[in-house]
Amino acid sequence: MEAVTTGKPTVVDRAMRAPKRVGRQTVRFQDPPVVAAGAAVVGPKEGQGPLGAYFDRVYPDTLLGEQSWERAECRMLVDAVRAAAGKAGLGPADIDLLFAGDLLNQTVTANFAARELDIPFLGIFNACSTLTEGLGLSAMVVDGGYADRVVTAVSSHHDTAERQYRFPTEFGAQKPLTSQWTVTGAAALLVARPELAAGVAGPRITHATFGRVVDMGVKDPFDMGSAMAPAAADTIRRHFEDTGRRPEDYDLVVTGDLAQVGLPIARDLLRRQGLDLADRLADCGLIFFGDDPQVHAGASGAACSGTVLAAYLLPRLREGRYRRILMVSTGALFSKTTYQQGESIPCIAHAVALEAGAP
Amino acid sequence: MEAVTTGKPTVVDRAMRAPKRVGRQTVRFQDPPVVAAGAAVVGPKEGQGPLGAYFDRVYPDTLLGEQSWERAECRMLVDAVRAAAGKAGLGPADIDLLFAGDLLNQTVTANFAARELDIPFLGIFNACSTLTEGLGLSAMVVDGGYADRVVTAVSSHHDTAERQYRFPTEFGAQKPLTSQWTVTGAAALLVARPELAAGVAGPRITHATFGRVVDMGVKDPFDMGSAMAPAAADTIRRHFEDTGRRPEDYDLVVTGDLAQVGLPIARDLLRRQGLDLADRLADCGLIFFGDDPQVHAGASGAACSGTVLAAYLLPRLREGRYRRILMVSTGALFSKTTYQQGESIPCIAHAVALEAGAP
Repeated sequence: MEAVTTGKPTVVDRAMRAPKRVGRQTVRFQDPPVVAAGAAVVGPKEGQGPLGAYFDRVYPDTLLGEQSWERAECRMLVDAVRAAAGKAGLGPADIDLLFAGDLLNQTVTANFAARELDIPFLGIFNACSTLTEGLGLSAMVVDGGYADRVVTAVSSHHDTAERQYRFPTEFGAQKPLTSQWTVTGAAALLVARPELAAGVAGPRITHATFGRVVDMGVKDPFDMGSAMAPAAADTIRRHFEDTGRRPEDYDLVVTGDLAQVGLPIARDLLRRQGLDLADRLADCGLIFFGDDPQVHAGASGAACSGTVLAAYLLPRLREGRYRRILMVSTGALFSKTTYQQGESIPCIAHAVALEAGAP
Repeated sequence: MEAVTTGKPTVVDRAMRAPKRVGRQTVRFQDPPVVAAGAAVVGPKEGQGPLGAYFDRVYPDTLLGEQSWERAECRMLVDAVRAAAGKAGLGPADIDLLFAGDLLNQTVTANFAARELDIPFLGIFNACSTLTEGLGLSAMVVDGGYADRVVTAVSSHHDTAERQYRFPTEFGAQKPLTSQWTVTGAAALLVARPELAAGVAGPRITHATFGRVVDMGVKDPFDMGSAMAPAAADTIRRHFEDTGRRPEDYDLVVTGDLAQVGLPIARDLLRRQGLDLADRLADCGLIFFGDDPQVHAGASGAACSGTVLAAYLLPRLREGRYRRILMVSTGALFSKTTYQQGESIPCIAHAVALEAGAP
């Protein structure tokens, strides 16, 4: 076969490779799609954190000259998508499909951004796990041959989120120390067919593990970490079970935004199930703001894991400082209505395995 | 090759077939996935409409014995998924992936249903076009080999939707004649690999055309038909352009819920672009309630096109009464906040081509 002489896989042997499904919740990509570019834009407070220097853009205020925070959030999402495409020398018209979501009712940030970007649009919502939901979907669509270049984009905004989920920030309500600070920002990641990412130093998406909803009965909207930790642990455990991998196969298993309260719970749950991740387990909600006491337990928001991946982890995978990362964004799937109706908070986590190296 | 002797395609010639992308917005399935089962459950008013006899279940009231309409909507979604899986002799544990969405803030109906069903869950939201968004995604995931059986499920509820988008129904606000009645109900469609749907009389999903956001400046939340018609026309036109098909290739092009106001607008827009669909163009929002004056312009809601497809169109495709249908669900992507902030209503439509016949 041609593969023998050229060293490149042909359509024939691609179709004959290992199965694409492993276990109950994981898919494996035969010719892993490349994260060809990523971009992260953030608000001023976020720019002052330890990752400040890595972001593509730090806005001087949270309104961006717009009439409302909602409009500002939309602008950020558009800017992030344009920036990610731009890094690959592309414009929105070169993107085949846009997976986008955010935390606002009816994901309006994504909807209005898609209106401006004019890319065929599939709205997704799994709260702060929307990032890895989108990356998993993007990888399937690209690896399956249905698109060449797909962008996953997520956003959140401290002021739009507080107003919607808890209290308007103008109200000045105090928050307990278990609460987290919703990141103001947006991230976009371009996933491309390996053939179209020549010269890009990776990483590649090798696996996606799609989570189930886990709800241990937590009802406090000011304690998302406790609510989401069991979902994170469930998906991580499933990923290792499904793939047969072991903790030492990863340099980092990084959860979405469990922060100070949630991360120790997830670590403990995993250890009880025989998975000791030790120092390999990290959390974007802790990485984002460092030890800033103003954010209480840490960062959160759909943009939290998105911006950490695009601005901080992606370059380190490219440079080979990390060989393999399991990215596990976590989402709290409640609404103000379900909270007011006394419901507990269902949570979910999706994982994607990122591997350093060019196609 | 083996295909010559057995008549069955092998992996080798499958991979060598026509490309999976056609045009800018359309994907074509090489070995079209089968809609192996569908189920539709509805409220009492819906059960009294002309499609009443076709639904799998008509509940005697809109609360289903639950404490809130939100809980009742969730119960409907769970019932629909169980019913669709049950028709294929399966339970939720046999489903690889659940794409689900609804109209409520943070798609909580889908989230809480996924908690109960315990299926790996990917939340989607494109308002009332969520159905075809999910079917297109399901078909890619199944055709791509990442899952064997995927369920797309959608729901809406008159009372939860009115409270959230306009006025609580208890308030008794009068609505203008351009308004539509949100269907109380849920639908679930099981999409399976052809090899696993032996004995099922189809139909199969041959194409999906993913829409772009179209916004012509309509701001009236009581006139969704006018807002959505241009998006429907855009996606339909794109589908015909991308595939090279002509109107006579379809027995029916059926939009989601344009109803009395929107359907003539879409028909006119298409005609001006040289696409005269004549009697082939129909609308679920008109089919659903017939000429019931209480619903004003017609039906709407994520469950509208979903229940019409599952209960009415699917059996007719199986019986061969329709050979090919283009299903074009339409969504209005606004929120109460964007309306109150004076924004216009961005809209979208996704299309899937359904073809009669067993695998």
